[in-house]
Amino acid sequence: MDFLGIADEEFIRQDVPMTKQEIRILSLVKAQIAPDAVVYDIGAGTGSISIEAARLAPQGQVYAIERSSEGIGLIRANAANFAVKNVTVIQAEAPEGLADLPEADAILIGGSGGNLQEILTEVTPKLKASGRLVLNCITVQTLMQCIEFMREHSDTYIYEAIQVQVTRLQQVGTYDMAKANNPIYIVTCWKK
Amino acid sequence: MDFLGIADEEFIRQDVPMTKQEIRILSLVKAQIAPDAVVYDIGAGTGSISIEAARLAPQGQVYAIERSSEGIGLIRANAANFAVKNVTVIQAEAPEGLADLPEADAILIGGSGGNLQEILTEVTPKLKASGRLVLNCITVQTLMQCIEFMREHSDTYIYEAIQVQVTRLQQVGTYDMAKANNPIYIVTCWKK
Amino acid sequence: MDFLGIADEEFIRQDVPMTKQEIRILSLVKAQIAPDAVVYDIGAGTGSISIEAARLAPQGQVYAIERSSEGIGLIRANAANFAVKNVTVIQAEAPEGLADLPEADAILIGGSGGNLQEILTEVTPKLKASGRLVLNCITVQTLMQCIEFMREHSDTYIYEAIQVQVTRLQQVGTYDMAKANNPIYIVTCWKK
Amino acid sequence: MDFLGIADEEFIRQDVPMTKQEIRILSLVKAQIAPDAVVYDIGAGTGSISIEAARLAPQGQVYAIERSSEGIGLIRANAANFAVKNVTVIQAEAPEGLADLPEADAILIGGSGGNLQEILTEVTPKLKASGRLVLNCITVQTLMQCIEFMREHSDTYIYEAIQVQVTRLQQVGTYDMAKANNPIYIVTCWKK
Repeated sequence: MDFLGIADEEFIRQDVPMTKQEIRILSLVKAQIAPDAVVYDIGAGTGSISIEAARLAPQGQVYAIERSSEGIGLIRANAANFAVKNVTVIQAEAPEGLADLPEADAILIGGSGGNLQEILTEVTPKLKASGRLVLNCITVQTLMQCIEFMREHSDTYIYEAIQVQVTRLQQVGTYDMAKANNPIYIVTCWKK
Repeated sequence: MDFLGIADEEFIRQDVPMTKQEIRILSLVKAQIAPDAVVYDIGAGTGSISIEAARLAPQGQVYAIERSSEGIGLIRANAANFAVKNVTVIQAEAPEGLADLPEADAILIGGSGGNLQEILTEVTPKLKASGRLVLNCITVQTLMQCIEFMREHSDTYIYEAIQVQVTRLQQVGTYDMAKANNPIYIVTCWKK
Repeated sequence: MDFLGIADEEFIRQDVPMTKQEIRILSLVKAQIAPDAVVYDIGAGTGSISIEAARLAPQGQVYAIERSSEGIGLIRANAANFAVKNVTVIQAEAPEGLADLPEADAILIGGSGGNLQEILTEVTPKLKASGRLVLNCITVQTLMQCIEFMREHSDTYIYEAIQVQVTRLQQVGTYDMAKANNPIYIVTCWKK
Repeated sequence: MDFLGIADEEFIRQDVPMTKQEIRILSLVKAQIAPDAVVYDIGAGTGSISIEAARLAPQGQVYAIERSSEGIGLIRANAANFAVKNVTVIQAEAPEGLADLPEADAILIGGSGGNLQEILTEVTPKLKASGRLVLNCITVQTLMQCIEFMREHSDTYIYEAIQVQVTRLQQVGTYDMAKANNPIYIVTCWKK
């Protein structure tokens, strides 16, 4: 039984920033990934989202799009490490690399490299009706671009935006010390 | 396909406080509930955790322990509404009502009615090895009682404690206004 | 001795939303109000910021600009209650009502009624060199408008933006229960 | 005019942890320091609180108690740097070093080195009636010890506890990226 919620330490990550466990869990659950889903993971980074998505969709297929060679290597290494077979790794700077993919049931966007508007424009016709698009934003500009796109396309999408702040109580001797993770905005969009 | 992450509005709740969606998702994922799991939901309230657990464990059994008659009625109404058959409702003030239950794979504690120490003492021998105990705490006293118990029983348990603060961006006209939920501590305990 | 940091309960507020104590303290300190300062409080609401500013600037003058009659009444009532003499109340929808005011040492903007761009354009030439402009934003749109203005006017302003989340531990019997206030963005702008 | 709210970068700090600006502002304002106040700063660290307190109390006296030699050096260096004359530096592990001090109008506790119970017991008779005691806690154990002491001494003290989470929007190119500070509990105690 492969559970959702792999511990952060289990991924090979080197110095590449990685979506932390709790944000990964919430993003994946909000994406509502079925066992046979087609999933895009855009800005896949270390592949942590791709690998958890691949385990949620054992009869489906996950497309991990990442521009950096370092990331591509990490995604491959992590997929091998978790014996995940249904992740296709694509080295490209999105929206490049998306045109030829099959229609998606769920799309997760972790990083957009400054091309969010173009990516959203490109993926919208590729997302199946009732499919979900989930974005993680660490900057207010990305959040706003996403919200503005969703408001402009309110005939196509309904959206929910939350900010999540996780603080870990780190066990230091007899004390539990509050250590903050950076807050993340998670925007979940339902295609009508 | 029944997904984890039911929207808060889908539960019948009247005026009973309910664990909000994001906290429910994180608590259930951290409890690592297998399809055939035996689960206790202690202080079940509206039954929102019980119902999601029951859907994660379709071949398992969920025991919802709740002291108030109002809660009992809500759990039954919500279970009927979601057509969930594997929730056993027990009206009792925990740790009462736990003695006769089968061993548990996962235990979620949402409310303890001031008896946390007794509840933890009672459930520890009932939790299977490698099982998980997940607590939601809204007061610092409950958090501390939990942490102190886990530190005293460090031969039995490993624990992780996080605080999660969710802020919802509420769509009001052309604005998205930040509305905070109350922060919750989630303590996840692994039985060795 | 009049201290900064009046308790929220000491203000007459009826149902008008009010900047909470901790946000008020941080905004006023970041505005660096000297004893003889000229201060604008734009979107003054209940006047809580105006009154604290007036006490920080006993030889100065505070201009409280507020569009609603209810607010105007509250500002007057609160000023009378705290025996503050140096608050001038102006009923206007900013940027109206600003043109005739003397140059400002500090400007606090609590509400902008959708006119933030116009307000910032109007007040910039009225703020003295080395003066400070402090904004409280409860929506991401307002935050972004403010940040965009500051980035476009980087020859005039340096800015700092923080988000502050205050959770009050409410004493309920033997427990201290975490109750969240809504998070606020505070943007502090230094005029070069 | 010496304003409250010195920027973090203006203090010499080396690798010593320092209360961040917003927490320092709130703690000092909640301590309600009058111009002629006697103030204790217990666990003074870099002296950032002591220096700001000394500027709020130019006719008063601040006693900075710190156990480490590194801290003592930093407090002296910072006091010299800000030309503050009314800080007395005491190298001791509190509650040592407190017995001979004059009665206090305000006491700030930033660090307790595990002796919080003893420190609170020692300082309570030294705090003047209507004086204020303000604690910064970074661990839940310290918070709880403080709350428990205040509840046991409810004939002597009224307390308020808040948790403050500050996130700084860091300007990175055209983006403002959310970077969290660790959350801090601030407990403010009024001596009746």
